[in-house]
Amino acid sequence: MNEGPLENLIRLLSGLPGLGNRSARRIALHLLSKRSTLMMPLAHALSDAAENVKSCSICGNLDMNDPCNICTDDKRYKAQICVVAQVSDVWAIERTAAFKGRYHVLGGLLSALDGIGPEDLRIDKLIDRIHGGEVPVEEVILALSATVDGQSTAHYISDHLSPLGVKVTHLAHGVPVGGELDYLDDGTITTALRSRA
Amino acid sequence: MNEGPLENLIRLLSGLPGLGNRSARRIALHLLSKRSTLMMPLAHALSDAAENVKSCSICGNLDMNDPCNICTDDKRYKAQICVVAQVSDVWAIERTAAFKGRYHVLGGLLSALDGIGPEDLRIDKLIDRIHGGEVPVEEVILALSATVDGQSTAHYISDHLSPLGVKVTHLAHGVPVGGELDYLDDGTITTALRSRA
Repeated sequence: MNEGPLENLIRLLSGLPGLGNRSARRIALHLLSKRSTLMMPLAHALSDAAENVKSCSICGNLDMNDPCNICTDDKRYKAQICVVAQVSDVWAIERTAAFKGRYHVLGGLLSALDGIGPEDLRIDKLIDRIHGGEVPVEEVILALSATVDGQSTAHYISDHLSPLGVKVTHLAHGVPVGGELDYLDDGTITTALRSRA
Repeated sequence: MNEGPLENLIRLLSGLPGLGNRSARRIALHLLSKRSTLMMPLAHALSDAAENVKSCSICGNLDMNDPCNICTDDKRYKAQICVVAQVSDVWAIERTAAFKGRYHVLGGLLSALDGIGPEDLRIDKLIDRIHGGEVPVEEVILALSATVDGQSTAHYISDHLSPLGVKVTHLAHGVPVGGELDYLDDGTITTALRSRA
């Protein structure tokens, strides 16, 4: 039997991250019950975003413009670059409104297991930015996950940036704000104790 | 600030059942990383399904044809109608391949709390089908949830079908196949004991 439009929709939905067959069926039925108010707008939003959202050629962030709004915002310091793995990390840091510099999205983390090497990430572009900017970069903040892959990526980048005379800093490790000591893992408590201030 | 295409996409995705802001952002980023292989096909699948999937005027099932493939399948008994709340219940019963009759989708359950009355469901159409079919309907199987709303809907339909001289049956209640007694609620065990055979 040929795959009908409904089966095709459910198959595509079930391949999205976090969704399975059951949730895809549920979403498809919900969409079909709201065709004009939700289903067609979503179809248009998908093609609109696919056509108009670009990857910033400087920092790798996603935006309608290239270079992106953050890279072209003159109010943001050019001398501070925050290095993150994914675009979602840019969004997470932007939500805090605590950072006024610019970003550099690597597009992933070094991973021996997944076969991701330095050439698969935007590390060369980071070094180019530090060499070639109008304003010299004073500080590179490595905002990478506290995982094995995150830390090995941070080491690799630190090693390659130290000859350039740029200050490399990391996010602090410690007790999450609102976190209860009793529920924290030993590694976090040990780190928080050692970094006490 | 105007909502960009990415924010618009994330807003629409986060309104789907089972998805929140975080999962919508994750799905949007995943889609943008696979624009031609996933994002555009999904946009087309959505408009294709919105335009071509119809609600069957006889049974209320969703299909490309009206009447649907099940209603027009001569191999399926016309004398047996299985009444379900949602299209997803049709799919669940079809997966078992244990039923060879036809369906009637109510489009929901009676619910005093949600203000859903008999006129909001396809109960009239069920009675019309029993009156007007070429082949007399011998049995109506009420395959409704074992919840308060499901059972009150079943009572309401039974009351309206009994004057028509049609046999009304219900799904059996009991221990799920593969279920361990120790993990079952008291109500299910009591019902299974009473209906023992």
